[in-house]
Amino acid sequence: MERFARQPRVTIADVARHADVSKTTVSHVISGNRPVSALTRQRVERAISTLGYRPDGLARSLRTRRTHTIALIVPDLTNPFYPVLARGLEEGEGADYRTFICSSDGRPNRERAFLEDVVDRHVDGIVLDSFHLTVDDLQHVTGGRLPVVWIGGTPMQHPGVDSVRPNDELGASEATSHLIERGHRRIAMIDGPEGSGSSRRDGFRRALAEAGLPSYPEPPVRSDWTRSGGRAAVRQLLRLSPSPDAVFCSNDLTAFGALDGIRDAGLRVPDDVAVVGYDDIEPAALVTPSLTTVMNPAFDTGLAAGKLLRERITGAYRGPARTLTLDSRLIIRSSS
Amino acid sequence: MERFARQPRVTIADVARHADVSKTTVSHVISGNRPVSALTRQRVERAISTLGYRPDGLARSLRTRRTHTIALIVPDLTNPFYPVLARGLEEGEGADYRTFICSSDGRPNRERAFLEDVVDRHVDGIVLDSFHLTVDDLQHVTGGRLPVVWIGGTPMQHPGVDSVRPNDELGASEATSHLIERGHRRIAMIDGPEGSGSSRRDGFRRALAEAGLPSYPEPPVRSDWTRSGGRAAVRQLLRLSPSPDAVFCSNDLTAFGALDGIRDAGLRVPDDVAVVGYDDIEPAALVTPSLTTVMNPAFDTGLAAGKLLRERITGAYRGPARTLTLDSRLIIRSSS
Repeated sequence: MERFARQPRVTIADVARHADVSKTTVSHVISGNRPVSALTRQRVERAISTLGYRPDGLARSLRTRRTHTIALIVPDLTNPFYPVLARGLEEGEGADYRTFICSSDGRPNRERAFLEDVVDRHVDGIVLDSFHLTVDDLQHVTGGRLPVVWIGGTPMQHPGVDSVRPNDELGASEATSHLIERGHRRIAMIDGPEGSGSSRRDGFRRALAEAGLPSYPEPPVRSDWTRSGGRAAVRQLLRLSPSPDAVFCSNDLTAFGALDGIRDAGLRVPDDVAVVGYDDIEPAALVTPSLTTVMNPAFDTGLAAGKLLRERITGAYRGPARTLTLDSRLIIRSSS
Repeated sequence: MERFARQPRVTIADVARHADVSKTTVSHVISGNRPVSALTRQRVERAISTLGYRPDGLARSLRTRRTHTIALIVPDLTNPFYPVLARGLEEGEGADYRTFICSSDGRPNRERAFLEDVVDRHVDGIVLDSFHLTVDDLQHVTGGRLPVVWIGGTPMQHPGVDSVRPNDELGASEATSHLIERGHRRIAMIDGPEGSGSSRRDGFRRALAEAGLPSYPEPPVRSDWTRSGGRAAVRQLLRLSPSPDAVFCSNDLTAFGALDGIRDAGLRVPDDVAVVGYDDIEPAALVTPSLTTVMNPAFDTGLAAGKLLRERITGAYRGPARTLTLDSRLIIRSSS
């Protein structure tokens, strides 16, 4: 097992003494802000390496006004999508930043309190997943001076702000086409709640339209993105005559509830009713039958958000706002 | 929908002007470090409230050497246990701290790099879940001056450091007693890998001993805490003659694999073989049949860690190291 080197904290004064230069010279070598002769620089760097000096983060932050800290504000870290996104952020170009993670529960008050707090802490940038906040709200807290990357939504919703979004319309369209290819003709959708995005519904409708099929029923029923909501919604669908032979659910939790409800009714998945979910959260591979679903690319979303944010923070990119759309991939398992 | 008040950033100078006092006086009122007359204090506080002034975090940190920041270092944030622990930490007495979350993948190099980084950033305290690090390692990075709460382990492993641990021996004992009460007599355990803690095995053995039963087989087989490992281990157990009538698994993923393996063999759960897991991660309620398991109190662990850490940071507690053991509760579902 590795062990830590046993040494007391080395200060900038120790480095200066060892290199036989002033503390100011050491600072200049570290910051790179002032010219220092090659020979002196070499001597200081050797001293830093010999003594194992690490600069003090807080003092450096005050000097540079950079904290190498970012904030990730999400509705709920216990939703399996977000820890994976956080790992993507942590492992890509965001790697040399430390990340504050805040769970807002989607409550505007809490989102605002977090935002104000992390702005006060001088984070270098923010990655934000919020259904409630507007670009205007954001500007008034950050003063418009802080790089932000929005997760999800559309360029129309967040003008002027970089964003990373999954291609939900494509994912939903592929899921629906897959059901059509398997021979299903009465395909229902359990949509998200009123006011939620329309991309998944749009994809569903597009694939049906291409095959000359209607949504069954039209319009799709709605639910609340929970397992119990999915169970109630599928119960409603199974009362139709004839009942649907396939159900496309707007997220995996809804699909788990649909599996429950179909089992309650004494029907088999996929023989009597096929089920497809959306997101590919980890339990999707664990339920019985395992769930066919669309992979919402959480890790890649985190990676991409880190890249866009870093380019803004360092000034490597100063152009107009960018929207990065990541393809969603259909994962075929046993429920379809 | 709530909107943010539209106001530019208020400075300490604005407050001073509004209260007709010097900036130094405003600082004294805010810091509480110097006496200020009641009347002046009132005037300044009124100005702060009227203007909506918020103190600058970075400047305050440099003044107080407190950052109101803590670090949570865990093996993997995508293990569903840790996001729940993080929420507990965030919502209890840790609420006015912001938390850096670091996933170490259990790699000593990465743990060390994170530790050094957050010490450089002057976090006020650390919550640490590490199998590798020793108290000695920790002391050499923190200089012994930084409050730390260890998650898991035993007081023997981490002398001198506050810790919060689940009562694994109790949980395992209750799970095993439950299987005995249901009439099972050939009870197998799929233990964790060589070198993992013995508390769950100890609890399993204690409950069997109280009922005068042996471990079947003795010693228990081992696996690697993964689903595929659990499937392989149960296959091995089902080759015994007679085969076990119940299997206690050292974590839920192993139990999911056991469910797979029992289904592969054409046997039914719980009629032919009962299965109990450990941890109660979210998928435990989603698999078929739903998994009887022991709830590892993740949220309460986070709450408790926040409380112990805060007491150390504020100096409210200065006594010897404490070990807080939280009871684990059996959740009976359909697999037993």
